This record gives sequence, structure tokens and C-alpha cells, in this order.
Amino acid sequence: MTVTITDTGSAPSRRPTLIKALTAPKGFGDATLRDRREDAIELLGGIPDPAVLPAAELAEATIRVLARPGVPALQYSRTEGISPLREWIADREGVPVERIIVTNGGFHGLSLAIHTVLERGDLVAVDNPIFPLFLRGLELSDARILPVRVGPNGLDIDQLADLLRDGARPKALYTVPDFHNPTQGTVPSSVRAELVRLAERYGFVIFADNPYRELWYEGGPESTEAFNNSEHVIHINTFTKTLGPGLRLGWIVVPEYLAGDIVALRSRQDSHSSTLVQAIVGELLTADAGLFDATLDRARRLYKSRAETLVAALEREAPGAFEAVVPGGGLFLWPRLRDDAVDPDRLAVDASDEGVEYQRGSFFPSGPGTDADRHLRLAYGHVPEAQLDDAAVRLGRALRRQSIPKASL
Amino acid sequence: MTVTITDTGSAPSRRPTLIKALTAPKGFGDATLRDRREDAIELLGGIPDPAVLPAAELAEATIRVLARPGVPALQYSRTEGISPLREWIADREGVPVERIIVTNGGFHGLSLAIHTVLERGDLVAVDNPIFPLFLRGLELSDARILPVRVGPNGLDIDQLADLLRDGARPKALYTVPDFHNPTQGTVPSSVRAELVRLAERYGFVIFADNPYRELWYEGGPESTEAFNNSEHVIHINTFTKTLGPGLRLGWIVVPEYLAGDIVALRSRQDSHSSTLVQAIVGELLTADAGLFDATLDRARRLYKSRAETLVAALEREAPGAFEAVVPGGGLFLWPRLRDDAVDPDRLAVDASDEGVEYQRGSFFPSGPGTDADRHLRLAYGHVPEAQLDDAAVRLGRALRRQSIPKASL
Repeated sequence: MTVTITDTGSAPSRRPTLIKALTAPKGFGDATLRDRREDAIELLGGIPDPAVLPAAELAEATIRVLARPGVPALQYSRTEGISPLREWIADREGVPVERIIVTNGGFHGLSLAIHTVLERGDLVAVDNPIFPLFLRGLELSDARILPVRVGPNGLDIDQLADLLRDGARPKALYTVPDFHNPTQGTVPSSVRAELVRLAERYGFVIFADNPYRELWYEGGPESTEAFNNSEHVIHINTFTKTLGPGLRLGWIVVPEYLAGDIVALRSRQDSHSSTLVQAIVGELLTADAGLFDATLDRARRLYKSRAETLVAALEREAPGAFEAVVPGGGLFLWPRLRDDAVDPDRLAVDASDEGVEYQRGSFFPSGPGTDADRHLRLAYGHVPEAQLDDAAVRLGRALRRQSIPKASL
Repeated sequence: MTVTITDTGSAPSRRPTLIKALTAPKGFGDATLRDRREDAIELLGGIPDPAVLPAAELAEATIRVLARPGVPALQYSRTEGISPLREWIADREGVPVERIIVTNGGFHGLSLAIHTVLERGDLVAVDNPIFPLFLRGLELSDARILPVRVGPNGLDIDQLADLLRDGARPKALYTVPDFHNPTQGTVPSSVRAELVRLAERYGFVIFADNPYRELWYEGGPESTEAFNNSEHVIHINTFTKTLGPGLRLGWIVVPEYLAGDIVALRSRQDSHSSTLVQAIVGELLTADAGLFDATLDRARRLYKSRAETLVAALEREAPGAFEAVVPGGGLFLWPRLRDDAVDPDRLAVDASDEGVEYQRGSFFPSGPGTDADRHLRLAYGHVPEAQLDDAAVRLGRALRRQSIPKASL
């Protein structure tokens, strides 16, 4: 044991290894990069629009659960989650209820997966480009990363197979299978099955991070059957993008052999997710069987319309400047700058000056070999269409600052 | 890196060091010890009575927060907690708001303290007897423990000083200063100041776990000034025993130098406590300035009356059998069996058979040298007085099984 005796009144100075590994945000999430105008239009985060969150229905559900005799919603409950909610989720997922663990949202599910599967220093294959906050989460396990290319159909399974064949032995793989953050793509069902076969063959666990899966715009969701049928997948889900981030409520579908370990860990953190929030959402979902899908239908229509508006506005206000495709779902557009002469960092600074804020594509690579720096991540879900039009006007102005000689501006 | 290649379809078998250290409950929390009667009276846990939880007021607060324009209660919020709630807490604690971090209840505060202060394998001084779940929480850091005697006035600071003088160098000290779980005692204000001086001199951090502090029965609370004025204290608090465990809402008062580390860790777990729960409780506390204290007054009167009922009933139904003192607050009675001839394990089994369940004193020691096995922990907060009377009758019957020869029963 190291003995530390500090002077009277001074702060103990030795920080645990776990804490020393946690770094300050760089790029994505670093507020110091922005000097925001008062009237800035913010396309920064995947925020659901309050207009499609069932606030009134949640209030009504709350009144009912808080009027129950003995008010069980205000008491302790099981670490795994309360039964009505878990059963509703299990039924929707098509898995036994024992495989459902309720969490405080998607990121919480990821942190439980990280702690339960990874030894400190383990190798983890990750999306490239990636949702950058996962890399911050990985600092909890001091993991090393193996970037795997993400293409128009999500994770590039051929590159992953090559890496594995060449001897890479990750303990886990992180990917966003549906409406990828930031690159919009979705892994087709057949590729999911192949991915699971690789996981089983090479002994890694897939962390399938799926916050956007319910926000498909047309034709229904991709199948999760391959995930459900394997002991090598933790499927991480949340009500964040559908019922509201502020609930802090999600779930993971886990293989049975992991459920006990996750509960053991969770019971030493915060015991269980808020019984009140679980009871409210459980009541909301079960009292009116059609409410969740009706809520989702409204959200899907709204987000699809906004995505179309944004793509059309970009083409109108900056003709030919972007390669932009309306996503199949989710909350992000990932347009590519066609003209290599455009400096994307200058564009972001000029856009901020014009009054539009977004995440630079250069914040998203987890390794070399991407053209992410030629992209912008535009989050449109919470932005009214008139503002999306205006954002495109501002972005067009920012772009033209680079095509017109300074003197003539 | 260890390479693990498993057979197709088999579960990956290597468990992380963190997870391997987590053990199954023994004694306290082990449901297999009980074979409960249908009509059993349960004096098992420190559960607040629903009659003194402000359920209707919480429902009204919910309606108001969910009707606000843009419904911020359903959106993301800061890791530290939302401002109205943090400010109310800071004001009540008498510390700057920067020192308040909102948590998912008391145990969550403990887990954040454990991860932020302790290196794996560190030595931690702990109450003896102790709230056993803290030892389970400590498994997160694989800590070694240094038991310190707890007497009628809580932690025995003289024994702690002796241990430190003899060379013990804990990195942290865990204690419940107010209405100790399980032993009822409270550390006087003057002793808190001495305790803080020891922490500053020997360089350890005090984890002051204080879920029961607001449930004093008479004369007001002990001062927390010594805790507030030191950089060597994390003061762990919760609304669990006052507004309801099901909220999963608490807070820690931390020294400023630790706030950043705790936020960095927390932001990688579940990002923040439910914005909705924080907004509801913030609204409850600020909309009617007197409501919290009025709620507490009702709770204090109820729990005091139940404690008195239970002590009187024990004396009536088992005259002279127990040394039992009405606690100064909290939710636990810690009566001692006067007759050394009584077998406490047999008593617990017989009591269960008679229909009364409690925690055996033998579940609570963290080391040798206590008489905890001669005690019972009776949790009376949630049990109506008629049932407390009945529990004493049943306990009296169970006791008499040991004083009367089997043949004559």
C-alpha cells in the first residue's frame, strides 16, 4: 500500500487509475470551439422534438401510478426493472423477459456492457467514423481500439473479416446498426447474421447500439433476429429518442449468461432505475396498446419531412455543393462536400459566424482512412422546417465566402 | 492480450476482474435464509411509510413540469443536476452550488465516491457493525477493510485514532453519522470535528453516508458544519427515506477538487439523473417552500410513535428479554438480548416460524470484537402500530420456545 500523508486541510492528491484515464472532450462535445450567435440555429445533437413526445400522456400516466394504493412507484424495486415494463419490452423484442435489463438510457447500457465484458486494456473493434462519446465511455476500461470502416450500409463486414483473418482478436465490437451516427447507413439483416457468425467464430461480443432503430421513415425496421439468437450480442436500446432523453430510461437485451453479472454490477451502482419513471412509462405503454406506435408514427413523419426539407434546402441554397441523401431514418444528415477546394474547418467557423452550428465531420473518425473530414453532421430532428431552410441559407453564405475572393465580399 | 476463441454459439467465458470480485449475498440480503409465512410481519428494511410520502403533491408537480413550453423535463440536462434542484439543495446544505452533484440515490453516491477516491486494493476504514451493502459496494474497488468499532454514539473515534497512531493508513473511512444503521447511534457534532481533523492529518477521505439525517425525532439535527468545511469529506445524501426510494434521487456534497472527476465518471455511466425526476422534485420543493419540512414533520412524528410502540410492546410481550432504547431518529431499533442463554440464530428461525422477519445482528459485523450477534435489527418505519404490537407478541412466543423444555410446548 502507498502511504499518503497530506498536510492539514490540503486535498488528497492521488487519483485512481480509473479516473486518471478520463480525458476532457476534444472536438465533439467541446463547447469552447463555438462562439455562438444569439440567433444561432443549432444542428448539433440528436435531440427529439418536444412536439412528438407524449408529455400529456406521461402526465396522465403519472397521476394514475401515484394514486395506486401503497404507491409502489415510490418504493424500491428489482435491479432488473419492474415487471410490467420488462414484460412489455420482452414482448416487443421477442425474447424471454429474463434477457431484458432496464437501464438509465442508452449510454448507461453501453457502460454496463463495457464493465461486464471488457478487461482493462482489452482490444475493441469500433465503427470508423464513430459516435465519439463511445470512445469516451471506453476510457472506463482503458481499452485499445481497432477501427473498422463504416460505409453506406453501416459497418464494413468485409474489412472486419479481413482484420480477424489477419489475426486481430477484439474482445468486443461496437457498432450502430440502424441509421448510423454519424453516417446515416443501416446494416442489412443478412449482414447482421454474418456479423454474428464472426462474433461467434472469433469469440467477441457485439455491442449493438441502437437508439434510432424505431425512427425508420418507410418500410419498417431491419430485423434484430440475428442479434436475439446469439449469445455474442448485447443489444443496447433506449426510450431516449422516442419518449424523451430526460426520462433516462432504456434497456439492454443480453444473453442469459451475462444477466447475473450485469445485475451484480448494477446493484452496486444505483440499485435500479427510478421506479417512478419505470412505472410511468410502463403505464403509458400498457394502458393504451396503440400509443407507442402512434407516437412513433407522428415522429417518423415529422423527421422524414424535416430531412427532406433540409436536403432540398441545401440543394437550393448551395447547388451542387453537397452530396446529400435523405436518410432512411434517424436524426442525422451526413452530407459530403463535393468540392475538394472547400476547407471544412473554415466552413464550420464561417457557418458559426453566419449563425448555424453543426458537428464537423472531422470529429468522428476513430482512425485513419475515412473521408469524414469532407462531411458535416447536421442534426435536424428538433429544428422546425423554416429554420432548416434558414440554416441552409446561412450555410450557403458560409460556403460562398470560400468561392468569392475576399476583396469582393 | 489473451486470445480467446470460443466454439460457435458458446458464451465467451473470460470474466473481467471487476466482475469476478462481485460476490453473491450472504446473510443480509440472502432471501434463501427465509421461508416466509403468508402473514409474516416484515421488519426487514429501512422502508419509508407510503402514508408520509407526498404522492399527491408529486403528481401535481408532474402535471406542472410536463405542461411547460418545450417540456425541458423530457430533454437532456447537465451531469451535475438541474439548476433549480441543485440550488435548493445547496441552500439547504449551506454550501456553494458547485459542490452539489445530484445522484440516483444514496447508494449511487457511495459508488461514485468509491470509484473516484479509491485505487483498487486500497484500505478503507469502516463501521463495525456496518450497513452490509457498503461492503458489497466496496467490491467494485477490491478494497481491504479496517473495521472500527461503533458504539452508542456512532463511530468510536478513540479506536480510530489508536489505529491511525499505530500506523494504519486508510484511503477512506465509511460511516453513517446520524441514526446509525444498524446500531441507532449518532456521532455528536464535536466528535465530527475531531474526525475531520484525523482525516486531514492522515490524508483519508470520509464517506459520510447520511440517509436518515432528516428523520430526527426531537431537538433538530446534528451539525454538518465540520463536513462542509473540509476537503476530506464526501457527504452522501438522498431523498430516499424522505420522498421515496422509488424516485432514485439523492445528492453528494463534495470538495471542489473532486467535482470534476465525479462528473467525468458519471458522464460515462448514465450521463445524468432523470431530468423528469429532478424537475418534479425541484418543482415540489420550490413551489411550496414549507412542503418539505411539513412532510418531514409528519414522518418524524409517525416514526417516533412507531419506535415507542415497538419498544413498549417488546417490554410488554417479552419482559426483561431485551435492552431496547427508543432511537433518536431513523428507522431502526437495535435491541440486545439480555440472556446469553438465548440462541439468536434459533430465535430468528423460530420468529420466522411464528411469522415475524427481521435481520439478525450477526449479519452486520465488519470484523471481530462486537456483540452484534446478540442484537436484532428491527425496521419499524413502514409497519402500522397494530402490526408492531403483533410482531412483539410473535417474537415473545419465539423467545419462549427457548425457555420452555421442548416436551412441554
